[in-house]
Amino acid sequence: MFPMGATERLVVIGGDAAGMSAASQARRMKGPDELEIVAFERGHFSSYSACGIPYWVSGDVTDRAELVARTPKEHRERAIDLRMRTEVTEIDVAGGRVRSRDLESGAESWTGYDKLVVATGARPVRPDLPGIGAPGVHGVQTLDDGQALLDSLSRTEGRRAVVVGAGYIGVEMAEALLKHGFEVTLVDRGEQPMATLDPDMGRLVHEAMSGMGITTVSRTAVTKILTGDDGRVRAVATDSAEHPADIVVLGIGVEPETTLARAAGLPLGHHGGLLTDLSMRVRGHENIWAGGDCVEVLDLVSGRERHVPLGTHANKHGQVIGANVGGGYGTFPGVVGTAVSKVCDLEIARTGLREKDARAVGLQYVTATIESTSRAGYFPGAAAMTVKMLAERRTGRLLGVQIVGREGAGKRVDVAAVALTAGMTVEQMTALDLGYAPPFSPVWDPVLVAARKASAAVRAGA
Amino acid sequence: MFPMGATERLVVIGGDAAGMSAASQARRMKGPDELEIVAFERGHFSSYSACGIPYWVSGDVTDRAELVARTPKEHRERAIDLRMRTEVTEIDVAGGRVRSRDLESGAESWTGYDKLVVATGARPVRPDLPGIGAPGVHGVQTLDDGQALLDSLSRTEGRRAVVVGAGYIGVEMAEALLKHGFEVTLVDRGEQPMATLDPDMGRLVHEAMSGMGITTVSRTAVTKILTGDDGRVRAVATDSAEHPADIVVLGIGVEPETTLARAAGLPLGHHGGLLTDLSMRVRGHENIWAGGDCVEVLDLVSGRERHVPLGTHANKHGQVIGANVGGGYGTFPGVVGTAVSKVCDLEIARTGLREKDARAVGLQYVTATIESTSRAGYFPGAAAMTVKMLAERRTGRLLGVQIVGREGAGKRVDVAAVALTAGMTVEQMTALDLGYAPPFSPVWDPVLVAARKASAAVRAGA
Repeated sequence: MFPMGATERLVVIGGDAAGMSAASQARRMKGPDELEIVAFERGHFSSYSACGIPYWVSGDVTDRAELVARTPKEHRERAIDLRMRTEVTEIDVAGGRVRSRDLESGAESWTGYDKLVVATGARPVRPDLPGIGAPGVHGVQTLDDGQALLDSLSRTEGRRAVVVGAGYIGVEMAEALLKHGFEVTLVDRGEQPMATLDPDMGRLVHEAMSGMGITTVSRTAVTKILTGDDGRVRAVATDSAEHPADIVVLGIGVEPETTLARAAGLPLGHHGGLLTDLSMRVRGHENIWAGGDCVEVLDLVSGRERHVPLGTHANKHGQVIGANVGGGYGTFPGVVGTAVSKVCDLEIARTGLREKDARAVGLQYVTATIESTSRAGYFPGAAAMTVKMLAERRTGRLLGVQIVGREGAGKRVDVAAVALTAGMTVEQMTALDLGYAPPFSPVWDPVLVAARKASAAVRAGA
Repeated sequence: MFPMGATERLVVIGGDAAGMSAASQARRMKGPDELEIVAFERGHFSSYSACGIPYWVSGDVTDRAELVARTPKEHRERAIDLRMRTEVTEIDVAGGRVRSRDLESGAESWTGYDKLVVATGARPVRPDLPGIGAPGVHGVQTLDDGQALLDSLSRTEGRRAVVVGAGYIGVEMAEALLKHGFEVTLVDRGEQPMATLDPDMGRLVHEAMSGMGITTVSRTAVTKILTGDDGRVRAVATDSAEHPADIVVLGIGVEPETTLARAAGLPLGHHGGLLTDLSMRVRGHENIWAGGDCVEVLDLVSGRERHVPLGTHANKHGQVIGANVGGGYGTFPGVVGTAVSKVCDLEIARTGLREKDARAVGLQYVTATIESTSRAGYFPGAAAMTVKMLAERRTGRLLGVQIVGREGAGKRVDVAAVALTAGMTVEQMTALDLGYAPPFSPVWDPVLVAARKASAAVRAGA
């Protein structure tokens, strides 16, 4: 313990959203005379938007620097000792110190901490397939990955791309590759693309992507990456076919990067993520916090822990951690599972539970699916959207919403996210006072139409 | 009372949103053998979108028929005896009957009812000014009004327009007239345009409209409409100036049309609207319901009755009335005061209480105003928006939100509308799991940024 006014040291492992938000918030609360902050980042960049990488690859965002919210220099100007290209290789919990290695010089050293933040992020799932390391096969997790892919795209003469995985990153990368003039094939194990949706809604994504010229191969696992005489990728093999490929992008998803935490004996959950309490403190560890893509979070709808790697959560975690580390108070109550994405002009959103999620936790439910439009039907630009709603049988409590549509569809999921958080029933939702004017909504907002149908289904299914 | 299977008669006064929604819902629940439905409408149109009139006048909507959700013929095909151009002139509550006059033939008759729905709508406030009846002075409440204005626009050679009133209809009409090539001056009594916002937010609307070439004259009452030798309007006079005008549009607002109800002794509130219970039954009257623009509704935030003429409420009222009349069950719990509009590409939204609303009911509050963007700052099309949030002192309960911005700003108010309905605090809102991806939102949605600032203000203002 330190007497008042003496300096504590906060060590942060990971220089991206969660870690640097925590550091910045802690700094806002305590000056350098009270709190020393040392942060380690093994990569070349700090505080960047990984979610923006597909849009940088696509060319929507032209300058990589725009994805960086705050540079190492800016952090240092705020009295945060951010050490770039420095990898933490061990957490010594008993000794209250971390070992790090300077990736340029190879030099190793130990740094003691009074308080520790673990924000080691996630690593892409990279299946152990023959040929996976071949030139022309790319992940898109980091800015370095994105740069490598862009370099590869500019060097590649062929225009055939295979994207492995049809989740958010996969479909966003399909759009990016389309914009570079590639013929794009998505190969995915799921019944339909976007397995974060129920298959009936995923089918709508499938159909819309077909209309954009994207080929989707579902229920299919990649078995091998085939290379040419030059060692470069030439095709992706599945059980049933070979898909010629000049470029392969891996968009299979990520898993918590908790190698360090595991070695240090910190508690991990079923999904491999760190387990924390509501203040983002690692369970059983008074002076260690964790946040961002390396933790599991409570799903408020199912009551289960989940791994939800998403920049918006990482930022919230960092804020909460920084407040607590800095002597304030904050909690992260959990998530309801909201996500939104797009492929070209198709908007895809979800929140809460899918049918299989509800079944997995023993919830009985009814569903309602409706079609409506983003604006009054007669207003120019009114775009079709499909809304699916799940409600608990008997109670009528909202369980989840999925939306597939065009402009104006995606962010409507926020209404459901708030209603889920508040524990509303679908009947209560039918009376929600949502903004209405012809350029913004039909007189019954699509979410209200879905709520009405779901409420009728609850009554009918009594 | 009728034995089972015998026919009851439902009479509906008013053939627009509330009345015909009620009739349609009642019809869905009971067939013609159980329930006879007679509806009276004095105008030429049924079930139309009055909110769409500015966009029809502007040319965004090209065909008047598109604004009609259901024609009289379509209603009749659903066994609703809708009598157009027939005005109800008296409600005989004791006798359970209404007197009506056929506006074509002048013939009068009485129609008995078992159940009555009063959906007489609103009438535009039309100040008793000299010259107000002159050719070239137009209201925009009904389709007939809209047609008259369009006819007038096409005949008018001059291109100077004055809009009286800078509320929703006023600013929407300013946009419509701009699109017809008019020089537009808005004259309004308020401190700033859009008095449904606080003046600091209204100022942003004022500035944006200036940028569009719309002149706004605030804190100014119209004293007279001046006419030329031909009897047509030539200018609008105020205390301080004369504004030349080839066209004048009145957008001052509306008040409940409850002349019939008042004469019949039905209960009216402070705003002149009918008072109902939560099932939309007129207070003290077992077999009379009322809904739409002629009723007052409970404001769930202030606990006071308000008059909120808006098509989306009228439709909900109709649905609830129809369910109850048809032997089902429904309630309309109230409103939180959500409204959204636009002037050209400027989006304007509000929900809950303004500062003066909070003061009027004795609530102490803190405010927070922030600027953010509709998408990640680096994403193409990211548009600036300003969000103002009011929270109750001490409790931190959300009291209201106002938003002024460009594309993607307006409908964000829905998040606040749901949070208000659920009674959330601004601190709770900071943890909301809103949809995030760079094309849809910054990593902190603007509503979350405002909630964070408001929460800090609550703590600081303890």
